[in-house]
Amino acid sequence: MSSGSSVPTRQRLVTAAAELIRRQGYAATGIKAILTAAGAPYGSLYHFFPGGKAELGRAVIEEGGAAYLALVEAFYREDIDPVLATEEFFAGGVELLESTAFADACPIATLAGEIADTHEPMRRAAQVAFESWIAALAADLAAHGADPARAETAGVELFCLVEGAFLLCRTTRSAEPLRIAGRRAVAIVAETMAPAEAAVARRG
Amino acid sequence: MSSGSSVPTRQRLVTAAAELIRRQGYAATGIKAILTAAGAPYGSLYHFFPGGKAELGRAVIEEGGAAYLALVEAFYREDIDPVLATEEFFAGGVELLESTAFADACPIATLAGEIADTHEPMRRAAQVAFESWIAALAADLAAHGADPARAETAGVELFCLVEGAFLLCRTTRSAEPLRIAGRRAVAIVAETMAPAEAAVARRG
Repeated sequence: MSSGSSVPTRQRLVTAAAELIRRQGYAATGIKAILTAAGAPYGSLYHFFPGGKAELGRAVIEEGGAAYLALVEAFYREDIDPVLATEEFFAGGVELLESTAFADACPIATLAGEIADTHEPMRRAAQVAFESWIAALAADLAAHGADPARAETAGVELFCLVEGAFLLCRTTRSAEPLRIAGRRAVAIVAETMAPAEAAVARRG
Repeated sequence: MSSGSSVPTRQRLVTAAAELIRRQGYAATGIKAILTAAGAPYGSLYHFFPGGKAELGRAVIEEGGAAYLALVEAFYREDIDPVLATEEFFAGGVELLESTAFADACPIATLAGEIADTHEPMRRAAQVAFESWIAALAADLAAHGADPARAETAGVELFCLVEGAFLLCRTTRSAEPLRIAGRRAVAIVAETMAPAEAAVARRG
């Protein structure tokens, strides 16, 4: 695990698997295709992942989860107004979708849907990843003065809007759903930061 | 196609495939498993679906799309207030998730995510299905007096909330995200039916 040449191979396997899985799903991604894309010899998969493809899938979830968490934290920072951060986060998502022909969106959403009922260790890893994103968002809103419970709710709502929009954008080959979801997300964050006005809205 | 005994076999194949695919995804669902679950002989698959699994997958999307459209239209009716319909729609979703151990949610979401970049005919079928749900919802809000453009936007927002929440619920084994999404959906529909109050909310 710590030898100089083997560390990059493990990483190449995870990166190649992640790239294939985010575009075509977990089950459709064969071990051979991963090894070819990684330029890695056959034996390396079971050397680094004795549990085989499922263990590699779990590493993809953990790494994708950490990468997306870093992305959330890069947008939602103490020195940036959360409403502005939300605008920029969704604008960045639209740009990513359009620049990758709607292929790259959430790194682990499709995988998570595929294995929710069938691979308990991967499901738990996906749960940890999803909850870490929601918690980071909620923590930032709370740090900017929002009520913690309402910040958590807003985090869940934004997660749902983003993931649902990614699915609709990829399926319809249009970024418009993510633009619509983004405007709603901005309104939700604004409401979460200003509870009094929100109460008026909810009475509607 | 029209002979008495062959029609049920085709339907059994689609039903069995749909049931397996919604729980474990498209790529993980093998033809043998579908035939076994359908109690159908091997030759029947290519008899009814000369295009093989991909053609069967497309039939699953079309049928799942039509079934979910019927569900949307059963909730959103001319004689029911859209806000109430939304409350009941999400309550029904929570009940379904909890009564099926979070297995049954959207019949085609996972499949749609898997094939968005790899199977163009299935992607187009999923697009038709998703857009039909959004259009039905938007039509009902418009029939109740909402501005048509705003009704369409609300339809997209509700789609995103539902699909994102289904993914989060299945992954976390909790219906709470769908409850949160449902409260937001109710607020969105209320706002869409009462634009004046919505303007106050958006100014937040």
